[in-house]
Amino acid sequence: MNLAVAVLRDKLLGLQHLGSMNALLSWDQQVNVPAKGYEARAQLMAHVSGLYHRNFTSSEFETVLMQAQEAMDRGELNEDESCIVRETLCDFVKSKKLPNEFVDELSLTCARAHDFWARARKNSDFGLFAPHLEKIVELKRQEAELVNPSDSWYDVLLDDFEPGLTSDKAEKTFTELKKFLVPFVSKIANSSVKTDRSFLKGPWDIGKQKKFAKMVLTRIGFDLDAGHMGTSLHPFCQELHPSDVRITVRYKKDDFVEQCLMSAIHESGHGMYEQGLPVEYFGTPRGEAVSLGIHEFNSRLWENYIGRSHLFWEYFFPELKLYFSEVLAGVSLESFYKAINCVRPSLIRVDADEVTYNLHVIFRFEIEKDLIGGHLTVNDLPRAWNQKVADYFGIEVDKDANGVLQDIHWSEGSFGYFPTYALGNLYAAQFCNAAMADLPEKILPEEFFKLLLGWLRTNVHSKGKLYSAAELVKRVTGQELSVSYFQEYLQTKYSGIYGV
Amino acid sequence: MNLAVAVLRDKLLGLQHLGSMNALLSWDQQVNVPAKGYEARAQLMAHVSGLYHRNFTSSEFETVLMQAQEAMDRGELNEDESCIVRETLCDFVKSKKLPNEFVDELSLTCARAHDFWARARKNSDFGLFAPHLEKIVELKRQEAELVNPSDSWYDVLLDDFEPGLTSDKAEKTFTELKKFLVPFVSKIANSSVKTDRSFLKGPWDIGKQKKFAKMVLTRIGFDLDAGHMGTSLHPFCQELHPSDVRITVRYKKDDFVEQCLMSAIHESGHGMYEQGLPVEYFGTPRGEAVSLGIHEFNSRLWENYIGRSHLFWEYFFPELKLYFSEVLAGVSLESFYKAINCVRPSLIRVDADEVTYNLHVIFRFEIEKDLIGGHLTVNDLPRAWNQKVADYFGIEVDKDANGVLQDIHWSEGSFGYFPTYALGNLYAAQFCNAAMADLPEKILPEEFFKLLLGWLRTNVHSKGKLYSAAELVKRVTGQELSVSYFQEYLQTKYSGIYGV
Repeated sequence: MNLAVAVLRDKLLGLQHLGSMNALLSWDQQVNVPAKGYEARAQLMAHVSGLYHRNFTSSEFETVLMQAQEAMDRGELNEDESCIVRETLCDFVKSKKLPNEFVDELSLTCARAHDFWARARKNSDFGLFAPHLEKIVELKRQEAELVNPSDSWYDVLLDDFEPGLTSDKAEKTFTELKKFLVPFVSKIANSSVKTDRSFLKGPWDIGKQKKFAKMVLTRIGFDLDAGHMGTSLHPFCQELHPSDVRITVRYKKDDFVEQCLMSAIHESGHGMYEQGLPVEYFGTPRGEAVSLGIHEFNSRLWENYIGRSHLFWEYFFPELKLYFSEVLAGVSLESFYKAINCVRPSLIRVDADEVTYNLHVIFRFEIEKDLIGGHLTVNDLPRAWNQKVADYFGIEVDKDANGVLQDIHWSEGSFGYFPTYALGNLYAAQFCNAAMADLPEKILPEEFFKLLLGWLRTNVHSKGKLYSAAELVKRVTGQELSVSYFQEYLQTKYSGIYGV
Repeated sequence: MNLAVAVLRDKLLGLQHLGSMNALLSWDQQVNVPAKGYEARAQLMAHVSGLYHRNFTSSEFETVLMQAQEAMDRGELNEDESCIVRETLCDFVKSKKLPNEFVDELSLTCARAHDFWARARKNSDFGLFAPHLEKIVELKRQEAELVNPSDSWYDVLLDDFEPGLTSDKAEKTFTELKKFLVPFVSKIANSSVKTDRSFLKGPWDIGKQKKFAKMVLTRIGFDLDAGHMGTSLHPFCQELHPSDVRITVRYKKDDFVEQCLMSAIHESGHGMYEQGLPVEYFGTPRGEAVSLGIHEFNSRLWENYIGRSHLFWEYFFPELKLYFSEVLAGVSLESFYKAINCVRPSLIRVDADEVTYNLHVIFRFEIEKDLIGGHLTVNDLPRAWNQKVADYFGIEVDKDANGVLQDIHWSEGSFGYFPTYALGNLYAAQFCNAAMADLPEKILPEEFFKLLLGWLRTNVHSKGKLYSAAELVKRVTGQELSVSYFQEYLQTKYSGIYGV
C-alpha cells in the first residue's frame, strides 16, 4: 500500500474505533438503557461524537490527509487507495465546516430526543416530542447552511444519505412511480380477489418466533456467529464491525410474520451487506457501504423479492406449520402466500405491503422537504401527516403513534433518509433482475440463497465505496437506475395474485 | 467549588466518559458479542483503554491536577474537594509509571483472553487458556515492578483492589478465619441434621425465574429504571452511571435459587451501591466506591444476611410457592430455609454456602500469591488447585471447568481481587451489626428493606471515596475491622440450623 495512504488508513482506524463506540452506544440505547439512564447516555454519545469530530477535523489529521491527496494527485495510487482518499476528503471538507460546539449541540440534542420520541410514541403524545423536534429541525437547517450555503437545505441533507441525489431527481422519480402506483393500487382495491388475513393474528408463541426467525436468518446466510439479534421498539441494524453486526426485531403475539419475521429478514439483509464488506479495509471508505439506497436494496431484496416470494414459502411453509401447528391448522400455502402479500392501505410504513410501501415513503419525502424548507411547522406536522394519509390511502390516522410518531428517523436528525427507502426498492428490482440472469435456473432454495448471497458479495458488498451508487448500478446492471424493473416486478407478481 | 478543582472535575468527567465506554464494552462483551466478533472487540477495548491512559497521563491533565494540588496544599479545599485531588493524585502517580505501549499490550492481552477463557471453560480445556494466562501473569508482574519496585509484586497488585491491604495483613486475617472455619465446618459435617436439597433441582421455568428475580430485586430496592438485568456466563455488575447500572445473571432449569436468584440479589447489592453513589460527583473519586471489599460487603449483605435469612423467606416463600407450585408442593418454609443454607463442601465458589465460601477465597489467595510471586507456574495451576480443594474440602475436582477455570478474574488480569471477597464478608457482618443497632426492631420486611438501604445510603454509599475503607469501618461501626462479628453471625445462625 502507498505509504501516505497507509498512514491515513491507520488514522482512520483510530477514528473508526470511536465510530464503533458510537454504534454500540446507539444500539445499546435502543435495546438496554433504562428509563433514568437516558440523560447520561445522551451526554456520553455527544461526548464520543464530539471526540470523533475533533479528531477528524484536527490539523494533525488534515496533514496526513493532505499528504495522501498529494500522492493521489501525483497519480501514485491504485483505485482502492484513491477511493479511500477521495471519499475521506469529501467527508473531511463537509465536517471541517461544522464548528465543534455545533456538533456537540446537535449530537446532544438528537441523543436526548430519542427518549422523548419513544415516550411520545408510547403515549401517542406528539407534544412530548415537538419541542425536541423543533430544535433538531433548526439545527439541521443550520448544518445545511454551514455545509453548503448555495444549495437548498433539504438537498444538502439528502446528500448525506444518498450522495448525488437531489430533491429534483427524487421528485422526478417519485412522480413516475406515483403515475404507476396510484392506479395500480386502485385496480387491486377493486379486484374481486379477497384475502383472508385473520390467521396472521396468531397467537404466535414468542419463544418459537425467536427460534424460527433465527433459523430462517441462518439458512438465508446471515451469520449469527458474526451477528446478534436483540429486541427494540423499532427494528434496526447497527454494525460495529463485519464480525459484529447487530440487528433488532420486536415480538408481538398477534403478529409474527410482519412484525418479527419480515423485519428480521429485512434487517439481516442490511446485516449481510455489512458482514460482506471487505474487512481488510475496515475503517476506511473502501470498506464502507456505498449509500443508504444501496443498503436498502439489500434489505428489501431479502425481505420482499425473497422473503415474500412463492418459492421461499414453498420451502419454509412446511416448517412454519410444524412450529405453529395450531395457528396454521387448515391454512394452505396459497392462502398464506396471498395473506402475506395482501395489498391494502395501511398506517404503518414498516408493515406496509410492497405496492403501497413507496407511497408511504413518497409522502414522507414531501413532508420533510416542506418541513426543512420552512413551508411547514413542527406543530403542523400531525395535521399534514394525517392529510397525506387521507390523500394517498383514503384512510384516517387513529392516533399519532400510528401516524407522525411511528418512525424514529427525525428524532435522530435524519432528514433525507426516507427517499433512500424508495430508491432501495428500485435498486433491488434492477439488481435482482441482473442477478437472476447470472444464476442458474433450477436450483434448490438453500443453494439459491447461497448463490444469490455470493453474487451480492462479488458484485456489491466487496466493492465498498469503490464506485458511487450511480456507477455501481451501471456497471452491474448495464444501465442507469430505472423504475421500469420495479414496475414490471409488481405487475407480474400482483397480476398473479389479484388478476389485475 | 474551588476553581482549580472545578477545572479538574471537568477533565475527570471527560475521562469518565471513556471509562463508561469501557464499562459498556466490557458488559456487552460478556452479554452480546458474537463468537467471531471477539477480536474486533478486543482491539476496540484496548483502543479505548489506551486513549484513557494517554489522556489521564497527558501533560495537559497533569497541569490541571498540579494546580488543584497546590490549592489543596494551601489549605483552600474542603474535605470533598480534597478527596477528589488526593485520590486522583494517587491514581495519577501510579498510571504515570506505566508507558502507553505497556498499557496497550496489557489491555489487548486481557481483552483477547476473555474469549479463550470462556471457550476453555466451556470445553473444560485449560490448555486453551494457559498461554494467554501466562502472558497476563508476566505483564502483571511487569506492571507491579513498574508501579512500585520496592514492594512484592502481589502486594502492589492487591493495593489496586483494596488500598492499604498487604498480603501479610490478609494472611493474618485469613489465618484467624481458618482457625474458626475449619473446625466449624467439621462440626457441621458431623452434625446429625440432614438437609434435603432435592427439590432445589426444579425444574424451574425460566420465564418465571426472570419474573420472580426482578420482583425480588425491585422489592429490596434495586431500581430497574436505573438498571438493567442481562444474561451472561458469569454473573457480574457493571456500572455506566448511577442511573444506568447493569447486572447479569444466568438461568438453569435445574437450579433457580443459587444460580439465578442468589446471584441476582448479590449483583443487585453491588448495583444498589452504585445507584447510591453521589451523582453530583460522578466521574470523580468523591463519587466512586471506596474499595472492592466495601463493594463486596454490599453484595454479600443483601445476598446472605438478607437473602438467606429466615425473615426474608417468611416474606417471600409464599410467593415463591405461588410461582413454582409444582416444584415446591409439600415443601415447608423450614425445609426450604435449611436447603438454601445447607453447609457442604463444594467445587464452585459462587454457589458455595456462607460457611465454606471464605475457604474458597482463602485458597485462591494462596494460589495467586504463589503464581504472581513465581513459586507456581501456570501449567501447575490445575494440579495446585485440585490439591487445595482436596486439602480444604476433602473432595475431588471432576474437571477444570469446575476447578481452576471457573472464575473470570485472572483472564481480566485481576490478581489480588479474590481477597476482597473474604473482606466483604467480614465487613458485611460488622456493618450489619451496626445497622441493626440503628434500625427499629419490629418492622415489616418491605419497611426493613427500605430502612436498611437508607442506612447504607447515608453511612456508606453517599460517602464515595471520602474515607478509606479502614477509616469508614471505624467511623461507622466504632472499631477496626474484626473477624469476630462474622464468626458470631455464623455461630448463631448455624447453631440454629445444625445444633452445633
